Formats: sequence, C-alpha cells, structure tokens
Amino acid sequence: MPSKTGSHISRAQQMRVLEGFAPVPDGLLLEHGGRIVEGRIAYRLAGIPGAPVVCVLGGISADRIVAVQERDTGRGWWEWMVGTGRPLDTRVHQVLSIDYLFGPGESRGAVVNDTRAPAASDAATVPLVTPLDQAHTLAAVTDALELDPLCGLIGASYGGAVALAFAATYPEKLLRACVIGAADSSHPLATAWRVVQRRIVQRAVAVGDEAGGIALARVLAMTTYRSDIELQQRFSGPPSITEEGLRFPVEDYLDHHGQSFARRFTADQFLCLSQSSDLHVIEAEHITIPVTLVSTDPDFLAPRWQMEDLARRMGDGHQLVRVSSLHGHDAFLTDEARFSEIVKDFVVACGAAAGQGS
Amino acid sequence: MPSKTGSHISRAQQMRVLEGFAPVPDGLLLEHGGRIVEGRIAYRLAGIPGAPVVCVLGGISADRIVAVQERDTGRGWWEWMVGTGRPLDTRVHQVLSIDYLFGPGESRGAVVNDTRAPAASDAATVPLVTPLDQAHTLAAVTDALELDPLCGLIGASYGGAVALAFAATYPEKLLRACVIGAADSSHPLATAWRVVQRRIVQRAVAVGDEAGGIALARVLAMTTYRSDIELQQRFSGPPSITEEGLRFPVEDYLDHHGQSFARRFTADQFLCLSQSSDLHVIEAEHITIPVTLVSTDPDFLAPRWQMEDLARRMGDGHQLVRVSSLHGHDAFLTDEARFSEIVKDFVVACGAAAGQGS
Repeated sequence: MPSKTGSHISRAQQMRVLEGFAPVPDGLLLEHGGRIVEGRIAYRLAGIPGAPVVCVLGGISADRIVAVQERDTGRGWWEWMVGTGRPLDTRVHQVLSIDYLFGPGESRGAVVNDTRAPAASDAATVPLVTPLDQAHTLAAVTDALELDPLCGLIGASYGGAVALAFAATYPEKLLRACVIGAADSSHPLATAWRVVQRRIVQRAVAVGDEAGGIALARVLAMTTYRSDIELQQRFSGPPSITEEGLRFPVEDYLDHHGQSFARRFTADQFLCLSQSSDLHVIEAEHITIPVTLVSTDPDFLAPRWQMEDLARRMGDGHQLVRVSSLHGHDAFLTDEARFSEIVKDFVVACGAAAGQGS
Repeated sequence: MPSKTGSHISRAQQMRVLEGFAPVPDGLLLEHGGRIVEGRIAYRLAGIPGAPVVCVLGGISADRIVAVQERDTGRGWWEWMVGTGRPLDTRVHQVLSIDYLFGPGESRGAVVNDTRAPAASDAATVPLVTPLDQAHTLAAVTDALELDPLCGLIGASYGGAVALAFAATYPEKLLRACVIGAADSSHPLATAWRVVQRRIVQRAVAVGDEAGGIALARVLAMTTYRSDIELQQRFSGPPSITEEGLRFPVEDYLDHHGQSFARRFTADQFLCLSQSSDLHVIEAEHITIPVTLVSTDPDFLAPRWQMEDLARRMGDGHQLVRVSSLHGHDAFLTDEARFSEIVKDFVVACGAAAGQGS
C-alpha cells in the first residue's frame, strides 16, 4: 500500500484528492543500465472514488498538480482542462498524475550502476533515465493503487513521450492514449537545441552560476515552444539601447520564463529530464492499443512530418488530429478552444472503451 | 584613390584582381549615433577591367573573397557561383565584395561616441553598427573606385540586409538587387536565438573562455541555418554514452562548425555582427530600384511569411522567387542547381538593365 501524504473528500461532490508515494520496485532496471533503489513516486489522484481513471502527464516543468482542488494553493499547470465542468471532468473521471523521477517534484530515487565505469564528470553522473523508465514508475503507481486499467492516458510534450512508452509497454494497464506534441524519438534538431541548453547549464555550474545557467537554458528552450509569427505579433519593435547593451522587447518575456524555471529546477534535475527527452525512442509497431496523436503546426520539437510518419507506421486503429496554431508546441497549454474539443472527444472515446457509452 | 594591397592580371583572360582599402569618410555618422574615424574598408574587385560590376555580399562569416582566382590560396565562400564559366561569370562581369566593418576581415575603423554615456560593460562597448552603416561603407568603396552604378548587388543573409539598406539609400549607385534570405527586419524569434548566442559569448568572456563561448554560440547559430528534416536525414540515430556524458550524432557536425568559426572570430567581432543583424530595419517603401527577393522554405531566420510580406509592401517592379529546400537558410550555399538558375536569371536582368541586352 502506498504511504499517503494527504486525502480529503469534498462533501458536495464526494470528491477525493488522494496524494501519496508509490514505491518503485527495488532494483527496477533502467533502459540504459543501472537499477533504481529507494525509489518513490509522488502521485495525486483526484475525483470520485471508483470512477474511471485518466492519467495526465505534462512537459518537464509539469508536476502532479494538473489542476487545483479545494484546499490547494497556487495553480495547476493545466487548470482550464481538468476539474468540475471542464473538458476532463473530475465529476466523471478520476485524474491521476505523478511527479517525474529526478525532476523537481517529490519523487525520489537513486541509481545504482553495477556496470558502468566511474563517471568522469558531473555530466556523466546525471542518471540516464528515459521516458520508458518514467513509464515504469507510472506502472508502479497504478500497481500500488491497485487500479483497474487506466481508461485513458493523456501525455503532452515530455509526457507524450512517456505516454507512448507506457502504451507500448503496458497495454494491459491502459485502454487508450492521447499523445500531444511527441513522436517516437527526438529528431536531431530538437536534440541540438537541448544539447546547447545542457552545455549552457554545465558551463554555468562549472563557474558557480547554476541559476543563471538554468535561466539562460530555459530562455533557449522557450524559443522552441512558440512560433516566429506569434512572437512577431507580440514582441516586434526596436530594442532599448541601455548602458548594459541592447535589450529587445522579446527579452522580457523570455527572461520571465527563464527565471521562473530556474527557481524550480536544479541543474541535475534539468540535465536529467532534458537528456531524457533526447533518449526517447519507441517502436511504433509495439503499440497495439488505440492512440490519438495530436500534431500542432508549427511545432519545432515534434514537427508535423514526424508525427505523420509515426501515425503511418502505427497503422490502423490510431488517429492523427491536426491542429494549426501560432502557439506552436505550447498550443496545448494556451489554445483552450481547440484542445478542449480534442480532450472532450478523447474522453468520450475513453468512456466508450471503458463500457460507459458516451 | 584607394591604397592597393594587390593587383594582378591574367594574360589569357585579361582578368584582374584588384584588392585594396577604401577610406570611410571621416566622421561618417552611424545610424544609432557615433561617428566612424580612421575607417578603411577592404575590397576586392575581380574580372575584366571596364566590365559591369556586380557586388556580392554573404553572411556574417563571409568575406571579400567570394571565389578564388589564380594566385589565391584556400577557397572562396561562394566558389561554385562566381568565376570563369560559372553563373556569375567573371569574363562578363567584375565581381566586387568587401569585408564587413568590425568583422573578422581586414576592414578597420573606430567609433567615436560624442553623446552616449560611458559604457557600463563590455557588451555596451560593442559598436552598434547596422546593415545600413555597412551599406555606407560599400558606398565609400564604389566612390573610391569611381565606379559607375553597380549593375547588380547580390546579398544573402546578413549581406541581404546590407543589400536592402543599400538599395533603399543609394538608388543612384545601383540598378538592381537580389536579396536572399533577408527581410526588412529581424523577427523576434531570430533575435531571441541571437540574444542567447550573445549571452553565451558574454558569459564565456567573463570567465576567460572566449573561444569556447564563440564555438557554442555558433553551434546554436547552426541550428537555425538548416532544417529539421535535413538534420534527421543526416544525423539520426542513438547517442554514444561516454564517460563525459551523452554524445549525439549531430554534435560532431555542430562542433566542427562551431570550432572553425571560433578560430576566425573574436568575441567583439561576433557580438558586433550578431547584434547588427538584429538592428536591421529598412522601410520597404523606400526601395525604388527593382529587387529580386529569394525566399527559401523553410528558413528559420527569414521565414517565407516575412519575405512575402516585404514583397507585398515593396509593390510593383519587384519579384519574389520561392525556393523549397531542406537546406533552409543556407540553401544559397548548398543548392547549386537552384541558386545557379536564380543568379543566372538575375545577371541576365542586370545586363538588360545595364543596356547590354541578354
């Protein structure tokens, strides 16, 4: 049984928020070698006890709080999508999420490496944890909670990679997946952008400026999340010429996000999840449960050609939903109208698959 | 008269290569304030003396050696485009080019700033030199050489920005321009990528690792020059897992270019030309001579929408040539078949404009 950190039930809705830690089976083998020891995954399950469960996984900066419930403070990372009366309605479904292992949340674990040579640098000490490894930790959560197969798993960005790995590996634990902004692997341009981000952080750590390096790496990441046209519409105009040099309108936006991110992530957490994105590889042919792929155009990180190619190789029983949005890769976070419809449709399909009708 | 650094004539072709320095008029006012003093622009004019002159300007890493002639060593940056029997034939046209002011070539100058407050940091001491300022130095070269109006000016990337500024400012010195991969300004995403590049360099300089910073900045720049599909075709595959960390196939390519670049550029030169790209602004309505705009799709730095918008605002008498190439922004350097045709067509139009017929 999981150890529980909190649980409360709302009288009006019979809503329960169950939070806790699920143990990772000791010695769980990682995809690139090494074993997890003393692992625990922080989870959160919100909704009516007994209702079918949909798991929701976001990008590397997302955590288990998808949307807040009463007593929560702050905001969830997908607030408008999940909750009472929202597209993924917690009166109908329970919503499960987790903190990623080695990310900034409360999941914890250590890697014991029996075979690899001693690490020569800090970079090499960052665990090689893939989206498949994260999928194993999600399986550990569903086992600990003794859940029926998930009726749905919605994963976006890094969470989309985890969702694909989970769908390929645990078809008995999942009826249907919705994968937004993720393909079967990272393409080399996306990897190149992340390589530069990691080098920025490594160089900054070497001179004792971890937060500055993480912020700048996130600034670079932000350039891959939206589109050129959106940024043109929002941030065109001349720079100010200051005593410190030029400052362009887009820099305030970028720096705001860079600094927020740096307050939440350590270098090791960032390096781990960043390289995890680049280690994502699944075999399309291994996916037997139905998957809804959602491709935004443009999306620099999961471009249309790559998701179309994946859809083609997955074959029948799957679906590719095409979205056009200037919000690019991040459209799932910002384009409420379009993504509400997509998730509503997916939830209907989940309900049908779970034998509820629609 | 310019001081000459070299001149030689080939007997067979009566080909002359004239190299020298043209003085920048002392006190030349820069677009963002300050005056140039002791400025000299390194030029190179190759071809049959008296033949009509086409000027060719490349990106920030290009210099006045567009293509080598006999006695030259090394290679020019657009070798297959310019020379005997090539699309821009030096038996028919003389080819002029320059080293950019404050770039890594032999052009020199200092900025006297009468009005700006003392600079607070190294960043602010980098001269604010715009493509328009570079256009003024090209005008100084044509004046020093007492040339007739240029029959053509082909500018690509940064050189395209300079070409647009020259066309808008010196219509009496130019009959026709060909602008490849440049629009009327830098859009905020392109600027954001360059902002990150400059910050990488500034941070590296601060810790005494100038070359490492320039190389990493160039690695980031390289991610904006090609396309995701091209990199996928050339560099897909898993990383090696080394004692220093992961190493992806694309990294060898990126690092090769980063390190080559770092051997040629100082931090100040890179910062100056990088921010110069972001300071580029011209008014489409000011361009009265005919311009051929060449837009590659995809081109992250001068996207199709931006060049179409520029073409629309320039109105009649201009032309937009659309190219599709996985080589992206760099297609003008790699796609010989397509760009040979474009330059041949442009040269024919130049000849017609210069009264030569075609």
